[in-house]
Amino acid sequence: MTTAQNRIKGSLAVVGLGPGAADLMAPRARAALEAAEVVVGYRTYLDLVRDCLNPASEVLASSMMQEIDRCRTALALAGQGKKVALVCGGDPGIYAMAGLVFELAQAADADLPIDVIPGIAALNACAAILGAPLMHDFAAISLSDLMTPWELIERRLEAVAAADFVVVLYNPKSKKRTDQIVRAREIMLAHRSPTTPVGIVSGAAREHETVRLTTLDRMLGEEIGMQTTVIVGNSQTFVWRDRMVTPRGYGRKYGL
Amino acid sequence: MTTAQNRIKGSLAVVGLGPGAADLMAPRARAALEAAEVVVGYRTYLDLVRDCLNPASEVLASSMMQEIDRCRTALALAGQGKKVALVCGGDPGIYAMAGLVFELAQAADADLPIDVIPGIAALNACAAILGAPLMHDFAAISLSDLMTPWELIERRLEAVAAADFVVVLYNPKSKKRTDQIVRAREIMLAHRSPTTPVGIVSGAAREHETVRLTTLDRMLGEEIGMQTTVIVGNSQTFVWRDRMVTPRGYGRKYGL
Repeated sequence: MTTAQNRIKGSLAVVGLGPGAADLMAPRARAALEAAEVVVGYRTYLDLVRDCLNPASEVLASSMMQEIDRCRTALALAGQGKKVALVCGGDPGIYAMAGLVFELAQAADADLPIDVIPGIAALNACAAILGAPLMHDFAAISLSDLMTPWELIERRLEAVAAADFVVVLYNPKSKKRTDQIVRAREIMLAHRSPTTPVGIVSGAAREHETVRLTTLDRMLGEEIGMQTTVIVGNSQTFVWRDRMVTPRGYGRKYGL
Repeated sequence: MTTAQNRIKGSLAVVGLGPGAADLMAPRARAALEAAEVVVGYRTYLDLVRDCLNPASEVLASSMMQEIDRCRTALALAGQGKKVALVCGGDPGIYAMAGLVFELAQAADADLPIDVIPGIAALNACAAILGAPLMHDFAAISLSDLMTPWELIERRLEAVAAADFVVVLYNPKSKKRTDQIVRAREIMLAHRSPTTPVGIVSGAAREHETVRLTTLDRMLGEEIGMQTTVIVGNSQTFVWRDRMVTPRGYGRKYGL
């Protein structure tokens, strides 16, 4: 055994909490929270899992928009030998913090075990609530242009609108960003019928969950905010008894 | 109370088991399996959850490729007043059976509660195993042309390759279908560097899990089969210490 192997080393688990309901968080995530000496996260997400935390764990809650500090803190504590859990809403690997953790670990040349524990992401949870809108090829696009040039986002919207993908829009709107969803709808409308089904879910699997089924034509009349995910159907998507369904192709091939 | 409300009615839960490891299945899915009077599913998936099944439940296992029969059976039993769980690997809403259930329910004008219980899909699980490849806009495309015209699949590959999406390829290859992955790689290579990172995961989160990191150039040298998911990076995706990472843009915006 080398010295390095004998040294007590910390570790970092990047833990996905799922959409918010306790019974949609994987047992592996719960176990990682219970095993952590330090739990780091955004206050709102930590509040969702207070019951799972070990009373002996140190809890470091931060405000929104402090992702870089949060990830740096988690890596630094793990580097000092602590067993750290960094909590993310949904799935850490989909518009959450897993990537930033690796970017920062690379920048610091951090030599420690980093484990990503996947979760049920907003796209999985919202699809289930709406019915089955993601049953055929789909694309996920964030409308936030904070770190991505808007031209690239438009190019992506255009590409998937033209190629008839179901489209999941993350970060559709915030108090300061209100134009992006208007433009996204215009781009989709250039390729799809105004009656294309659109599902709008806010606060999925939480107490304040709201679900609305509308159309491309009418979608801007609905409330869309920071916690909203918007799913735009493809040319085959239909609504049946308040469920949004994209057929896979069984009907065409086999008759049903 | 109307007669309809008094009538004992069945229900159908379409349950996502997650990728296969017991500790990646949501408690809500486990509860639905335990509560079911009848559990219907493909034999391989049922074998993964034998421990969760209620000994009093009737279990109807079927072979592969019998999705329509399986869904019809589940709907018929629920229509007869049974509490039925239909199990799916991964997430029922992503290339699994939730859509087919609604299509068949519509065809039969079935009036019963249908609940989709989301799960950790292959894309979530494979991304976590690989590192953080899905941290920016991505598309999921199935290469199976059994029910989708190959021309449409090519059009979609072309669209997302050109617009620099990370791409998750489902059903990349089977014994009979071996050309699609070759053509998909060609399309990606027309728009991306040969050194673009590619992650290949087979049997994610199961005992026989294998993980390989390669490049667009070399990917065809790796074993790819029915249980394989292939993730092709975008122009920014990099590999650091055997982890595949797509940056979100923090580095460019803030410096890290």
